[in-house]
Amino acid sequence: MTVRAAIVVTGTEVLTGRIQDLNGPWLADRLLELGVELAYVTQCGDRADDIEAQLRFLAAEGVDLIITSGGLGPTADDLTVATVARFAGRELVLDGPLEARIAEILRTLLAGRSGVDFEAVMAANRKQAMVPAGAQILDPVGTAPGVVVPGSPTIVVLPGPPRELQPMWSRAVETAGVQQAIAGRTEYRQETVRMFGLAESGLAETLREAESGIDGFAELEVTTCLRRGELEIVTRYEPQAAGAYAALVDLLRSRYPRELFSEDGALIDDQVAALLAGRRFATAESCTAGLLAARLADRAGSSAYLAGGVVSYSNAAKVSLLGVDAALIAEYGAVSEPVARAMAEGALARFDADTAVGITGIAGPGGGSAEKPVGTVCFSVAVSGRPTLAHTLRIPGDRSDVRERSTTVAMHLLRSELLALSAG
Amino acid sequence: MTVRAAIVVTGTEVLTGRIQDLNGPWLADRLLELGVELAYVTQCGDRADDIEAQLRFLAAEGVDLIITSGGLGPTADDLTVATVARFAGRELVLDGPLEARIAEILRTLLAGRSGVDFEAVMAANRKQAMVPAGAQILDPVGTAPGVVVPGSPTIVVLPGPPRELQPMWSRAVETAGVQQAIAGRTEYRQETVRMFGLAESGLAETLREAESGIDGFAELEVTTCLRRGELEIVTRYEPQAAGAYAALVDLLRSRYPRELFSEDGALIDDQVAALLAGRRFATAESCTAGLLAARLADRAGSSAYLAGGVVSYSNAAKVSLLGVDAALIAEYGAVSEPVARAMAEGALARFDADTAVGITGIAGPGGGSAEKPVGTVCFSVAVSGRPTLAHTLRIPGDRSDVRERSTTVAMHLLRSELLALSAG
Repeated sequence: MTVRAAIVVTGTEVLTGRIQDLNGPWLADRLLELGVELAYVTQCGDRADDIEAQLRFLAAEGVDLIITSGGLGPTADDLTVATVARFAGRELVLDGPLEARIAEILRTLLAGRSGVDFEAVMAANRKQAMVPAGAQILDPVGTAPGVVVPGSPTIVVLPGPPRELQPMWSRAVETAGVQQAIAGRTEYRQETVRMFGLAESGLAETLREAESGIDGFAELEVTTCLRRGELEIVTRYEPQAAGAYAALVDLLRSRYPRELFSEDGALIDDQVAALLAGRRFATAESCTAGLLAARLADRAGSSAYLAGGVVSYSNAAKVSLLGVDAALIAEYGAVSEPVARAMAEGALARFDADTAVGITGIAGPGGGSAEKPVGTVCFSVAVSGRPTLAHTLRIPGDRSDVRERSTTVAMHLLRSELLALSAG
Repeated sequence: MTVRAAIVVTGTEVLTGRIQDLNGPWLADRLLELGVELAYVTQCGDRADDIEAQLRFLAAEGVDLIITSGGLGPTADDLTVATVARFAGRELVLDGPLEARIAEILRTLLAGRSGVDFEAVMAANRKQAMVPAGAQILDPVGTAPGVVVPGSPTIVVLPGPPRELQPMWSRAVETAGVQQAIAGRTEYRQETVRMFGLAESGLAETLREAESGIDGFAELEVTTCLRRGELEIVTRYEPQAAGAYAALVDLLRSRYPRELFSEDGALIDDQVAALLAGRRFATAESCTAGLLAARLADRAGSSAYLAGGVVSYSNAAKVSLLGVDAALIAEYGAVSEPVARAMAEGALARFDADTAVGITGIAGPGGGSAEKPVGTVCFSVAVSGRPTLAHTLRIPGDRSDVRERSTTVAMHLLRSELLALSAG
């Protein structure tokens, strides 16, 4: 039997796209891990009627579990709890102990802040202690408590800030209301294969073959998507279809030996981080202007191998900070393989590193020429004791696409060079 | 009379959060500009039943216009057009001229690629030339055409890639189907005020005052949200409420003279870019590792004032590339105001710049101490001919929060210093 869930993201700021919703995707992963099928994610503004209409629709669709995010704040436009209570036919009651807890939290928060009228803040926050009768309270991580309203569907009401929502979800899962809603769920497996340097339509062809060639292929829920220039193939299946999935992976492996770089869901970032362990890495970036260094530093522990980098946006900086020969720039232009090489080798020397990447390109919208149109990017990978590689690509898209994809290309060039290295 | 619209984002990869939906937010802005009220954004997987259920729900809610995004590709899991056709009670017909156009586009795309079976690719793409009878075709920007199916509601079917969806939306708006759907819409204005260094609950208090103190405040649809450490107040209103809005802005101005930094919706990035015009700027980043430089370089034309930057992740890099005195690091620690100052001044010198920012901090999860816990970040702004500023903050959140918010804090410190400068 399949258990279906839906996520209702409330908040005009999310609906109008002024802030990106991080809770839908995060909750989607958690539901998947639980073996619960996510049917819908819906967003609506801070309007009681719209929120209630969504709840009615989802209940009518027969979902077993609804998770709402947002609308628990102190401001008047936060009305999720009241709306859920009305929908569930339960009255709102002031929970004394909860009100005391919130007061406690606010006292700590405001401690030391001058010019804050504590009573006014408490009044603003008192509504956060109003909960649907019979609902289970989820203690606040910030100042906003959540609630679990058991029923069909069971409704879990969580705050908007991911830092608060995430720990509160873990508690919500343990409540009787949620456990009863997700009882009898099916176990699903999900596997991810990643490829680089392959067109989606080519893959579509291969998948059509698999459809006829692989027994039980129909039991695999395969979705493909292009992402940062990489092709991601995610397959969801019940355990008995494991054989069909193995056959699919074999097919992809044999068909795309060069393009397939990850069978275990590992990101290129994970692979590069592992390959850089024990090394000393530096970057020399022009058009990406720090994106590659920042992407590497995004993971904890990166300081073990990331020495640093130079953003040599101007030609003068290429010369003074990376020791690029000005004559090289004059002869070949700032966007050229010789300059990319000199940048990477300059980074090696200046950071006393053993591995470095150089990137110089034309992100646009201006600066293109017939010979070097916008999107032309030169990459270089320098490893001490080996000849320095250089590679030029024309990357499609607008300024930010070109800059972001360039970091992805650089990660893949770095990976293959380090693999070749470890292969001997 | 209000015209209401809804956006249906299809695609399992979006539903499951593996790719971020950029179309919902973008279309939301376009609808707002048109004076059309966005009621819902819904996401569902590539399942015909779920997509159709959404369309039924939205039609029942009486929306005048539905825009779908995604599911127009060549793969079998792309079935939006067929689903919309069934919902609208129109049969799918193969459009000959359209098929020819798609073939044309594919020929150009695949030109020069070896080992591509053109006929197989055409077969894969033939389904993209099947359109609902009587629908208006939107020529493809990529390979996927869109359609406008007139009716109540009118349904606009657009492809998922933003680069294709955006130009095709502009064409869709001109079609008779959409024009009829949005006829008689109300004109709305939307204004944005931005503040920095203010708690949301404090603002909530001020807004409650405004509720009682300002005539016609009820006609203002005010939404507030915390975003990258900034507080954004967006107000939507019909023209006759302009007076009430002006009164609200006066109140905010008088109450938050220091925190209010933008009344015209301009981002801190816009303001800093304007203030940097004619200057020569450089960065020295440790924990942010290039995020600040990359953020500045994100806008076209930034090369006019952005000389470059150093990512001095290791102490050795701070010394060798920025000339930070090793004794300073030994005495005060790498995360200290003296080192932040030396980094900024080092960037000033090395890039021959007149303005520089230094950032050094503990992003976590490790590296914190009792005296300098995770989130401790030291900032410095150096302007040639002026004393170098230094400032230490404790920034909440996880590693990526700390790193991203640090760039925002740096932008604001830079702004106020440059404003003070221009004020003489």
